[in-house]
Amino acid sequence: MPHIDLPRETPGILALLSFRPDTAAALLGLAEALLRGPGPLSRADRERLAAFVSARNECQFCYSSHRAAAAHNDGGSYASLDAIERDLASSPVSDKLRALLGVADKVRQGGKQVTAADIARAREAGASDVEIHDAVLIAAAFCMFNRYVDGLDAPTPTDPEVYDLMGRRLAQQGYLDALSGPGSAPQSQR
Amino acid sequence: MPHIDLPRETPGILALLSFRPDTAAALLGLAEALLRGPGPLSRADRERLAAFVSARNECQFCYSSHRAAAAHNDGGSYASLDAIERDLASSPVSDKLRALLGVADKVRQGGKQVTAADIARAREAGASDVEIHDAVLIAAAFCMFNRYVDGLDAPTPTDPEVYDLMGRRLAQQGYLDALSGPGSAPQSQR
Repeated sequence: MPHIDLPRETPGILALLSFRPDTAAALLGLAEALLRGPGPLSRADRERLAAFVSARNECQFCYSSHRAAAAHNDGGSYASLDAIERDLASSPVSDKLRALLGVADKVRQGGKQVTAADIARAREAGASDVEIHDAVLIAAAFCMFNRYVDGLDAPTPTDPEVYDLMGRRLAQQGYLDALSGPGSAPQSQR
Repeated sequence: MPHIDLPRETPGILALLSFRPDTAAALLGLAEALLRGPGPLSRADRERLAAFVSARNECQFCYSSHRAAAAHNDGGSYASLDAIERDLASSPVSDKLRALLGVADKVRQGGKQVTAADIARAREAGASDVEIHDAVLIAAAFCMFNRYVDGLDAPTPTDPEVYDLMGRRLAQQGYLDALSGPGSAPQSQR
């Protein structure tokens, strides 16, 4: 049960955003800038970083929704992220993404866990400074989003359909209007 | 040494924000909403939450700058936060802030670490749902900012004067124009 009085029918972070519109706009703006704004990493790879960090942080809501967003930024296929989840080392992703996922996992454990060797590995695999920056910031941001959702025990749907629909909407329409659409809070609560 | 090529003379997160203006605006907007926007917790208490979480996450830059911002939102006195750092249980803060700092420390360790008993303690001490929400989100956000700064090994000044000046500016002028002022990047890099 959520730790605070949230709208009943609204899933996960959407319930929190509806509860507190003063901070919602800033959080949605950050998600849009990080995951869809101008940048060298593909939107699918950025969503993969978000889903990967959320999985390791055991945040079911964020993992399921960004896994679906990654899929819908990649023609609808869940194969790549599911392979990463089974075994990162053998997954059929680029060496660059594999190295950036390794950096992201260190960030997740703590900023000081990132070593010069982790960064060198990413650079050898072709990552630019901006790509390294963006991977670190996405990983750090999901350490926030995961704690926000689970720290307030926001409602976490179990139906995979809910996440697939959410991922499709995020891939098509982005984050800025995430509070207006199916699964979001009724107008009166916004 | 920073993991990416940052402006040399710019301290901490300001160097990162200067490096990547596309994400800087969203991050500064979030800091402003969380720490200074409309809300029931005082700005000094919100900065105390930020500094406390940063200290426990061992992020020297974020701790020192938000410790100074807390002081300059409280008549310039560092006494309250230094007492919290010495011993939270005996520090002369309100029971409400003590309970919210306890919740924040759980969030820091992981969203699922927050228990119904932690929340009940905050509520018994007078915290409202919005105050609990805001404390959780501030704690979560500093799990992001701390990892961003340390994950890229941003320059961390050692001179306490630098932080005192920064804290004074943040208390007086806020976060939105943090990139334009003393200690920030030269105009050409923005």
